[in-house]
Amino acid sequence: MEDTLNAYLAEHRERFLDELFEYLRIPSISSEAAHRPDMERCAAWLCGALRRAGAERAEIFQTEGNPIVYGERIVSPEAPTVLVYGHYDVMPVDPIDEWRTEPFQPVIRDGRIWGRGADDDKGQGFMHVKAFEAMVATGTLRCNVKFMFEGEEEIGSGALTVWCGEHREMLAADIILVSDTSLLGWETPSITCGLRGLAFVEVEAQGPNRDLHSGLYGGAAVNPVNALCKLIGSLTDDATGRIEIPGFYDGVREFSAAERAEINAAPFDEAAFAAAIGLDGLRGGERGYTAMERKGIRPTLDVCGIWGGYTGEGAKTIIPATAHAKVSMRLVAGQDFERITELFIAQVEKLAPQYGITVRCRALHGGYPYVAPTDSAAYRAAARAMEETFGRRPLPFYSGGSIPIISTFERVLGIKSILMGFGLDTDAIHSPNENFPLANFYRGIETLPLFYDYFADSRK
Amino acid sequence: MEDTLNAYLAEHRERFLDELFEYLRIPSISSEAAHRPDMERCAAWLCGALRRAGAERAEIFQTEGNPIVYGERIVSPEAPTVLVYGHYDVMPVDPIDEWRTEPFQPVIRDGRIWGRGADDDKGQGFMHVKAFEAMVATGTLRCNVKFMFEGEEEIGSGALTVWCGEHREMLAADIILVSDTSLLGWETPSITCGLRGLAFVEVEAQGPNRDLHSGLYGGAAVNPVNALCKLIGSLTDDATGRIEIPGFYDGVREFSAAERAEINAAPFDEAAFAAAIGLDGLRGGERGYTAMERKGIRPTLDVCGIWGGYTGEGAKTIIPATAHAKVSMRLVAGQDFERITELFIAQVEKLAPQYGITVRCRALHGGYPYVAPTDSAAYRAAARAMEETFGRRPLPFYSGGSIPIISTFERVLGIKSILMGFGLDTDAIHSPNENFPLANFYRGIETLPLFYDYFADSRK
Repeated sequence: MEDTLNAYLAEHRERFLDELFEYLRIPSISSEAAHRPDMERCAAWLCGALRRAGAERAEIFQTEGNPIVYGERIVSPEAPTVLVYGHYDVMPVDPIDEWRTEPFQPVIRDGRIWGRGADDDKGQGFMHVKAFEAMVATGTLRCNVKFMFEGEEEIGSGALTVWCGEHREMLAADIILVSDTSLLGWETPSITCGLRGLAFVEVEAQGPNRDLHSGLYGGAAVNPVNALCKLIGSLTDDATGRIEIPGFYDGVREFSAAERAEINAAPFDEAAFAAAIGLDGLRGGERGYTAMERKGIRPTLDVCGIWGGYTGEGAKTIIPATAHAKVSMRLVAGQDFERITELFIAQVEKLAPQYGITVRCRALHGGYPYVAPTDSAAYRAAARAMEETFGRRPLPFYSGGSIPIISTFERVLGIKSILMGFGLDTDAIHSPNENFPLANFYRGIETLPLFYDYFADSRK
Repeated sequence: MEDTLNAYLAEHRERFLDELFEYLRIPSISSEAAHRPDMERCAAWLCGALRRAGAERAEIFQTEGNPIVYGERIVSPEAPTVLVYGHYDVMPVDPIDEWRTEPFQPVIRDGRIWGRGADDDKGQGFMHVKAFEAMVATGTLRCNVKFMFEGEEEIGSGALTVWCGEHREMLAADIILVSDTSLLGWETPSITCGLRGLAFVEVEAQGPNRDLHSGLYGGAAVNPVNALCKLIGSLTDDATGRIEIPGFYDGVREFSAAERAEINAAPFDEAAFAAAIGLDGLRGGERGYTAMERKGIRPTLDVCGIWGGYTGEGAKTIIPATAHAKVSMRLVAGQDFERITELFIAQVEKLAPQYGITVRCRALHGGYPYVAPTDSAAYRAAARAMEETFGRRPLPFYSGGSIPIISTFERVLGIKSILMGFGLDTDAIHSPNENFPLANFYRGIETLPLFYDYFADSRK
């Protein structure tokens, strides 16, 4: 089987790339209302791609938000069913000036595909479509396959959550397969076993009803930027690196010494990781944990954006009327994002000045953390497939990122997920100059059919 | 003497107004290059007005910027010399739609002169020319008088600063007399005795070399927005409202209980002041001082602008590469803006995280504070003059704003200034529908000769 399949893949590599480029050229930025027509266009394109790849059923489900693309091919009622999940929406592109090439005009340079979505998640999601095509074309598909691609992963997966609840039967499957994560490295394949949850809150501090002259009013009116800085500053402790929100750590799963040893067994080159982002070391987060642990199994509080007052050139001497901050908290096993959001808001309200400033919090989105078992049939199939293509056994990896929908799948559909991602940390996802190595794209397409094969075997 | 003078003023009131209207019709907007010919025209008009009023010498000095108009009349080498300062340039007129009448077509309505410059500073400056004319015409002038009118006050007084340094001898005087400020109210005459200085610094916190995914990096990389918030938050103390920069208060002039009582004697309606800016009270600044004191005689630290990371709609989960803040410190008597800038930068550098963040400070501009002594002959003469025309003794007023040229005069020429302004807070200077009550214009012309008289007496 492998020879036929590999021959097919070799023959069609260039076309696969051309098709991916078509997909990448659609600026499907879900967070910007102006791109709503692009979301429709992108969903239609993807639906057509599924059909051409061999889906017997491929359709677009309209939702309150962006459309969901669904496809399936049922080979046998006895065969195990794999539900593939991906997302066709991408992140915004600002700061646009920092891109070396146009974000929606993908190019190949230095063995990499450059463009918004090259990795996250168009490039990775499309590997599944092409692996599926190859298995169908070569008659080697031994599992039932279902696809669901959403257009709101970067803005909270609101529509998909509702839609899953409404289509439990259609989506019935043995495992959900997802490529939306990274390898520890090309030489260190890994399968993501943990994802952090997220609580994202916007804070507004309203002071006077208009910008004031800082001379005539300075000292009289409370400054909302000063107040917001003090408030945000109080949410973390410099000495310990801990988050100073009462109850924040309640229930956080503490990993055993053995588990921590395994996490730290990954050949994580801290100096290289730091250097790649222009730093001389990794010093964020809590004391008493390694960087690997801090970004994998410990919660965080990061301001993702702040603004208020005059931000142009030179000096303008005002007391701003308002200040805003967007705060993201990454959560770990044992933390409920709704509870954490409440605790955050309560603490912000408690710390806010009692006079002269009105603080308002708005929860923008949230998601539960997720932990996958490493002793399941699906995990073993994924591990064997990767071992075969990479030549070494993958490590379990606890990622610091969040894919809130993964824990939603577990809660709504009752199905676990296997996070077999083929990205690299250097792919600059969510940043300017996002890219995806060609080698990873093709390696993914080669590895996925092996997973299906081993997973089908596990049913024998 | 007063009778002769008052008769003269009564006889010529209409003409004074006609002349002011000619002056107001010249659109001398210094910040707009298109108005450069109007600056020349305005200077020439004013020079002629000084000559006609009785100046024995009246000439235009060309500079690198707009011309300076100089005039003088020397009555006796023994007489005290008054140097009058004013400015013939005005602010731009946008938003032009909000003007009820044409800004450069002055009209009288409801007892007020409406038009750009009606108060700031053509109307107030021209009172001096007409008071001078009246004293010359009636033979009552007992002081030497020098006039300097600049055309760049609204854009930083660059040319005047240089010019003063080059003409120290010509400008020698006992006092500088300025009408470019407001009264606390018609019923509450006042003389401005304090102006705050300014130190304006931009702070940049640089973290990683690009925006990072807050999941994949959160806990590993230090967040520059979090760091900047903590840093800015640490610069003030919540409990005391004091600025926490070592040495910041060194040398700050503490006012005596008597002086403070006088400051607080002003009929300041705190509730109305707060309500006008949408607040239910004034709670900024230091504990232990009234709002009137906090905005007049105490220094402040206000963030005028802050920005970093994602500031668009919705959620974007990043650790920003950089964060910036623009900080304005209003300074009071005893504070040197260069020294304060150094102390600020030193403290910011001390508080900055030791790893993962690079903090850079850039001083954008600064100015010295100014305090006029209330026990000088000139102040006493001004106070007596106002008491005579207003029927009540003026209060010393410490303004929170800055007029940088006043402290420049003291440093460059070694001469103190008396800020005897006749404007009102309702005059809408710098805004649409600038106006100046006719009563204030005429009251100013009546009051100024009394000042000269009492000031001449002080030499006896």
